Amino acid sequence: MGNENRRMEEWKMSELAVTERTRHRRMRENGSVRRADLDAVLAAGFVCHLGVVVGGAPMVVPTVYGATADTLYFHGSVASRSLQQAAEAGAAGAAEMCVTVTHVDGLVLARSVFEHSVNYRCAMVYGVPRVLADEEKLEGLRVLSEQCAPGQWDYARRPNRKELAATTLLALDLAEASVKISVGPPDDGDGPDAELGLWAGNVPIRTVFDAPVATPDLADGITLPDHIAALRSV
Amino acid sequence: MGNENRRMEEWKMSELAVTERTRHRRMRENGSVRRADLDAVLAAGFVCHLGVVVGGAPMVVPTVYGATADTLYFHGSVASRSLQQAAEAGAAGAAEMCVTVTHVDGLVLARSVFEHSVNYRCAMVYGVPRVLADEEKLEGLRVLSEQCAPGQWDYARRPNRKELAATTLLALDLAEASVKISVGPPDDGDGPDAELGLWAGNVPIRTVFDAPVATPDLADGITLPDHIAALRSV
Repeated sequence: MGNENRRMEEWKMSELAVTERTRHRRMRENGSVRRADLDAVLAAGFVCHLGVVVGGAPMVVPTVYGATADTLYFHGSVASRSLQQAAEAGAAGAAEMCVTVTHVDGLVLARSVFEHSVNYRCAMVYGVPRVLADEEKLEGLRVLSEQCAPGQWDYARRPNRKELAATTLLALDLAEASVKISVGPPDDGDGPDAELGLWAGNVPIRTVFDAPVATPDLADGITLPDHIAALRSV
Repeated sequence: MGNENRRMEEWKMSELAVTERTRHRRMRENGSVRRADLDAVLAAGFVCHLGVVVGGAPMVVPTVYGATADTLYFHGSVASRSLQQAAEAGAAGAAEMCVTVTHVDGLVLARSVFEHSVNYRCAMVYGVPRVLADEEKLEGLRVLSEQCAPGQWDYARRPNRKELAATTLLALDLAEASVKISVGPPDDGDGPDAELGLWAGNVPIRTVFDAPVATPDLADGITLPDHIAALRSV
């Protein structure tokens, strides 16, 4: 386990590969090449926006995901459709996808409209996903389920054979990814706009989980399990 | 104004055009064809995920937007790059974009993992955006600014000529769009899983604005304006 831990530490400290797609181009956003930042952004959410090309045009659909250190799991019939089209067309490039995970952390209100921006954390992952089967599919579903609702995999009834067959699960390597993080106050305090006498600062934005609501048809005597009560974050 | 109001009412009651891309295919999500639902989903946020095709592959980037009854405004250098590539290639289709706005409203925790889902509202808009100039650009920036931070357009310093020139603003018609809304508890209460004795329900998720934080270099005596204090929603 010592070796395993060391490998994991080295992996987290490692830098993301810079490709034509992941090279940072913009200014205020702080492009990160730290794998630990990618891990953190992916770990902080469970909904991604999946971009595919269908009939030559882009399509962006929200879907849930789960992530390990090296793999992003997601389902999506749209993605399958795109993969199928690509296979039929024999066009490997058409199976390329982009998965983007964004957390909006705040409004940045500067003295000028031009300097206004948004604080956020964003990860973009590129690649051609694999369609999973058997044990790998089940493991991917576990990762995805645990990311969305920790504890439910052990609590709820797990997928049976029929349900597994009806589920398409895809895996995307985290090999080609980019991370952007924008934090802090506006930076127009050292220019002439600072003399305008206007308020400037930022307004933090958070996502909160409210109290769980039992389904109306819940049988009497069934209590809320601790792991669901623990989701509450408000 | 009576005619104008009536036209607006008719517009809101009107149905969205169904195209090959906007036709609803899935089950649990409730596909809506009401324009009023599209308006409401777009009005409820200010960050979208913009999908473009660059070099044949999809790219999904988060960006801010503003919406009127018939137009979505957004900036984005990535979009401009895509438009430019498309123009150079003479390939009209390559300029197609998809803008997706998603609000995650809750976790749906069923008795079985298979029936788990997410409550959400999602709008997808398709089309080829126009690059705006002059008065239209300024008006688009006003719409976008007011959607992100209502009141700032009148409070902060507006863009000057140089800043306007440095800003690319795009407009996408809301002509081809689809809306999906998923609400409520899980629906596995009438099957055999209801006998498992497991808790089922949903956990609402909300986005909240915390108290504004003044920038550290703010001059003494500048008070927080009411319209920024009013953003707070927690």
